[in-house]
Amino acid sequence: MQNFGPASDEPTRLANIVSPMFLGQTGWVQELQDGAKAELLAGADAQDDCAVFRVDGPMEVVLGSDYVRGPKFRLYELGYLSNYDIGYYLAMANLSDIAAMGALPIALLSVIRYPKSLPDTDFTTVIEGIRDACREVNTLNVGGDIGSAERIILSASAMGIVEQGRSLLRGGARPGDRLCVTGPTGIAASAQRYFGIFDSGSTKLPDEREELLISAWRRPRALVRQGRCLSTSGVVTSCQDTSDGLKAGIQSLAVASSVGFMVDESALPIADIVTEVAVLTDCEITSLIMGDSVDFQLVFTVAEEDVPQLSKIFADAGLQFFSIGHATEAHEVSLRRADGTVEALPGTPWRHAT
Amino acid sequence: MQNFGPASDEPTRLANIVSPMFLGQTGWVQELQDGAKAELLAGADAQDDCAVFRVDGPMEVVLGSDYVRGPKFRLYELGYLSNYDIGYYLAMANLSDIAAMGALPIALLSVIRYPKSLPDTDFTTVIEGIRDACREVNTLNVGGDIGSAERIILSASAMGIVEQGRSLLRGGARPGDRLCVTGPTGIAASAQRYFGIFDSGSTKLPDEREELLISAWRRPRALVRQGRCLSTSGVVTSCQDTSDGLKAGIQSLAVASSVGFMVDESALPIADIVTEVAVLTDCEITSLIMGDSVDFQLVFTVAEEDVPQLSKIFADAGLQFFSIGHATEAHEVSLRRADGTVEALPGTPWRHAT
Repeated sequence: MQNFGPASDEPTRLANIVSPMFLGQTGWVQELQDGAKAELLAGADAQDDCAVFRVDGPMEVVLGSDYVRGPKFRLYELGYLSNYDIGYYLAMANLSDIAAMGALPIALLSVIRYPKSLPDTDFTTVIEGIRDACREVNTLNVGGDIGSAERIILSASAMGIVEQGRSLLRGGARPGDRLCVTGPTGIAASAQRYFGIFDSGSTKLPDEREELLISAWRRPRALVRQGRCLSTSGVVTSCQDTSDGLKAGIQSLAVASSVGFMVDESALPIADIVTEVAVLTDCEITSLIMGDSVDFQLVFTVAEEDVPQLSKIFADAGLQFFSIGHATEAHEVSLRRADGTVEALPGTPWRHAT
Repeated sequence: MQNFGPASDEPTRLANIVSPMFLGQTGWVQELQDGAKAELLAGADAQDDCAVFRVDGPMEVVLGSDYVRGPKFRLYELGYLSNYDIGYYLAMANLSDIAAMGALPIALLSVIRYPKSLPDTDFTTVIEGIRDACREVNTLNVGGDIGSAERIILSASAMGIVEQGRSLLRGGARPGDRLCVTGPTGIAASAQRYFGIFDSGSTKLPDEREELLISAWRRPRALVRQGRCLSTSGVVTSCQDTSDGLKAGIQSLAVASSVGFMVDESALPIADIVTEVAVLTDCEITSLIMGDSVDFQLVFTVAEEDVPQLSKIFADAGLQFFSIGHATEAHEVSLRRADGTVEALPGTPWRHAT
């Protein structure tokens, strides 16, 4: 590893840290199932005005942006997340949007701003977190922007490619479609709830359970493989990630598709750790599962008759999903409790003033 | 215009402000000279996880990110720039990177974070600035991220398309190539220098001259038409924008291309307003022209024998460029003064510690 200065200026950081770390990106290729390719002609190592891809055939290109709330990132403030962790998180949060479109990620652009005093080692750690998250889902950090600010600011954009006609939009659910989710939700929210209430010293949960909770924030995972199974199956009618919480995800599929949903409480996948935190913190489990929680699961719809085909595709890939309800003509989004009563979906969705 | 609340939450802003403002984006098409097209299938009005483009043939896709220093944006702090202006600037700064690659911009993603108290009217004004800048160069704001932060934070990414093999990189200049620039530089730096020294009340310059100075920040322009002339000509060997200053731009072409440059002081295009500010503020003109100044001109190289062809293309388009020197075998970047003496290029380049 190169010699670090205490806090190099931007041209020096680009030359000494960013460029060597991303050496050899040029020529990297991502290929779709129909053979269409995207090849990186100029990546982060090129330090040009932009990254450049050659795309060789008809395809769909998807792109989105997410900002990570630095100092408002409560678990970072509390010392549970390192600089590496927030870099990793930034990348995965952005890559999750690509996964939710059913696309293969081909690029991440990262914007990293920091106080002038931030040491080179800390800067490097943030970039390493971003790089490793990209590697984890087989993509590259191809550029972005670095420079000073009053405090750490992290933002990114991601781009992906998908076969023609296969992007997973939110607006295609039809009444009768099964509503499904790739895994349990509420874990990230449980971590915030737990660590917001208890000191790490107070050990209300065993260490390994605390580790499990915090790992939702330290090593989130964009479900690219699941997204690809959904898109290439050709049978999924709508999809989005649960980065604003499961309830928000379901509501947004409902609005975009002009349908409603009936969710079966008894069918919801529940992580044990969520139950443990709900009990410890005196919180209703289903509210915790449904509320604002950045778990990066995928929530989607598929016609009843196509469920067996999709189940087989997932099983063949060693993956799974859970059927948790169905789309309705009526536009309401409701919950059928285990006891048969029907009520509005509980949980506070994303950022609606509380 | 819709009724504004004092400060709506994000889902409400998306539904009431962003979505209506960007209604009807779907179906928008950008077409290259060889007929390859990018069609927007899901834009900002769709509010999906990502924007989606269908690209129909072989082409190159370019993408880059730039952050705008909100409260460190000195002229904003001093009250010379409005919320509309900084939105406009954010978009143009990002689109300039696309122009510098010779690409047609097809998308801008904007990240807008703000204190919770920011009124809906101010939020709307920022977005309107972004939208209008995009319109000015015939592209669209297709999405991004909004939400709260301690203060206004603006970041964006832009994407463009260019014919195969036509992206303008920094690394292709050869010894003997002419070094050219699309217009005078140093105006943005002159504005910072002037307004940083004088109060608006002290009227060292007439009002219309102050207006001219500040317009470099209020209504910057990404030189997309010039970039397209450069890329489609097929004769340009390297190019970048002058967003870090002319000296930084020339140095970066030199490093990327493994050449040096001899710049002729007498050939530099000079805006009268830069001369006026240099005199008023007791500053050497060439340093002001060369130093850190975000003017968004394009600096590029072209083989001597191809200059007439390129000049004709520009003239036919009603545009111009200036030959300011040539590439050398020796790796130094030097200035030949009007009196014939040769010295290192003056001016402080981008963000090297001062």
